Amino acid sequence: MDFAVTILGSGSATPTANRGLTSQYIVCANRHLLIDCGEGTQMQMRRFGVKFQRIDYILISHLHGDHYFGLVGLLSTMHLLGRVQPIHIFAPKELEEIINLQLNYAGAQLSFPVHFTATQADEPKVIIEDEKIEVTSFPLSHKIPTTGFKILCKEKDRKLLDDKAKAHGVKIEYYHRLKKGEDITDENGKLIKSSDYTLPGEPAKLYAFCSDTRYFEAILPVVREVDLLYHEATFTEAFRDRAKATMHSTAIDAANIAKQAEVKKLIMGHISARYEDGVVHEEEARHIFQNSEVVSDGATYLV
Amino acid sequence: MDFAVTILGSGSATPTANRGLTSQYIVCANRHLLIDCGEGTQMQMRRFGVKFQRIDYILISHLHGDHYFGLVGLLSTMHLLGRVQPIHIFAPKELEEIINLQLNYAGAQLSFPVHFTATQADEPKVIIEDEKIEVTSFPLSHKIPTTGFKILCKEKDRKLLDDKAKAHGVKIEYYHRLKKGEDITDENGKLIKSSDYTLPGEPAKLYAFCSDTRYFEAILPVVREVDLLYHEATFTEAFRDRAKATMHSTAIDAANIAKQAEVKKLIMGHISARYEDGVVHEEEARHIFQNSEVVSDGATYLV
Repeated sequence: MDFAVTILGSGSATPTANRGLTSQYIVCANRHLLIDCGEGTQMQMRRFGVKFQRIDYILISHLHGDHYFGLVGLLSTMHLLGRVQPIHIFAPKELEEIINLQLNYAGAQLSFPVHFTATQADEPKVIIEDEKIEVTSFPLSHKIPTTGFKILCKEKDRKLLDDKAKAHGVKIEYYHRLKKGEDITDENGKLIKSSDYTLPGEPAKLYAFCSDTRYFEAILPVVREVDLLYHEATFTEAFRDRAKATMHSTAIDAANIAKQAEVKKLIMGHISARYEDGVVHEEEARHIFQNSEVVSDGATYLV
Repeated sequence: MDFAVTILGSGSATPTANRGLTSQYIVCANRHLLIDCGEGTQMQMRRFGVKFQRIDYILISHLHGDHYFGLVGLLSTMHLLGRVQPIHIFAPKELEEIINLQLNYAGAQLSFPVHFTATQADEPKVIIEDEKIEVTSFPLSHKIPTTGFKILCKEKDRKLLDDKAKAHGVKIEYYHRLKKGEDITDENGKLIKSSDYTLPGEPAKLYAFCSDTRYFEAILPVVREVDLLYHEATFTEAFRDRAKATMHSTAIDAANIAKQAEVKKLIMGHISARYEDGVVHEEEARHIFQNSEVVSDGATYLV
């Protein structure tokens, strides 16, 4: 599973027997990220076998409690389990004060460094980048400043044609550069073209996470043609007024974004506790965008 | 169930598959109290069928996260469920700042009043009293200021001997005062003695909650002869050093308190995640105090 999204909580506002509060665990090129961390996320992680200490990055979309009340408990548990490696948190700036206040009154000093970076809900911004992944935060439209996150798993190295390279006597020390797409002139002046000895690697893959937000077309350029789009769909059409009042989306809103952005697949979550299942959400969404589904806690999606 | 204690979480510090974080639901003479509120308490309440809106009082022992990180989420859910009646919180004073900070950054104003009373960990103090119950906070000895709580369910009214009262022509309007134990002189100067027309009511009952604390004999006068004593027992003897270092108790510590205080029954919780069950705790405790047991999540004890 080179790029996978596991749903840790798919409910909204109040947890139900079936749906925990928003959190997702992302593995991408061996980077491990948590997006949002509602109350009970650490229990869900245990339930679904997610290893606490593998998490490198925690991204928090906004400061409504159902998206972050589980964070300080998770950090405390990481501490009690003896974590030493740093954790990187990207969140609205006020969260740092909230966490520090609670740790301070508990007389606790974490056993590991927390590197906190404040997110901004004004424009798209690359917040994490290395050779394998790139994470962009981007503004959503909700009652308080809220960002979505887009994760790019970069194109893989080209695949070496081993037998051909050997047969033509290409030196092993050139393999790495050829796989990176580089053409090489050897010490005798001979050109060794990457395209002669390699095939294209796996293309880059994109996942975008949009929660919470009203229907907001400004995100279209950011989420355009992503492989997998998570978009909140708190309500069905019967509760469109409620969606409007609370600045949430309906399944049709989510599907309209998916369609216009020409994404490959839409997954919907943040389902209101009033729904026993996602059947109506799916029916409504599929009229507009066929490849839609409502997520369940514990489900894993390959990007 | 006139006076009952339901265990919502019996684990310590980090939750496990079997044990949630500390919380107990107490019903006493139709008063509904929650003691401590670790992360996930609202999920446990739902799981064990505790009605959120019946809770009148929330008592928080101290500001280690495993005892209160679930509180702000519970308050948020009460709000979303449309609560209007006030809630009374008794806790270390800093908790008010923590809760308000989080509500403030969420742009949330609760739909119900929160009456906050700061507890003190210096001496026993009656914090709630009405005609039916009395609740006392008292100091424990832990790394940060911590209180236990003792709940008194007051003696019931005396039971009227209906037939005898009727046969002797005692006026119905006197019944209430006779049941309260009052002797009455009627308009003809005749003495009507309560003890002639009533039998004793149910005696007062006491429950004491001690978490978290090292072995601390100063609590003995407070918990003396309670009907039910909850005492933390994070460790077994094999980890006595660890108990000392973390200012927690072993099962034997808890049993020694129970024995010296001559309580009727001891229940133990806050069990470290390292234990799969409470068998060794119970074995060790029963050598000292026979009527001991380790609690499980969801168990209910009648006081």
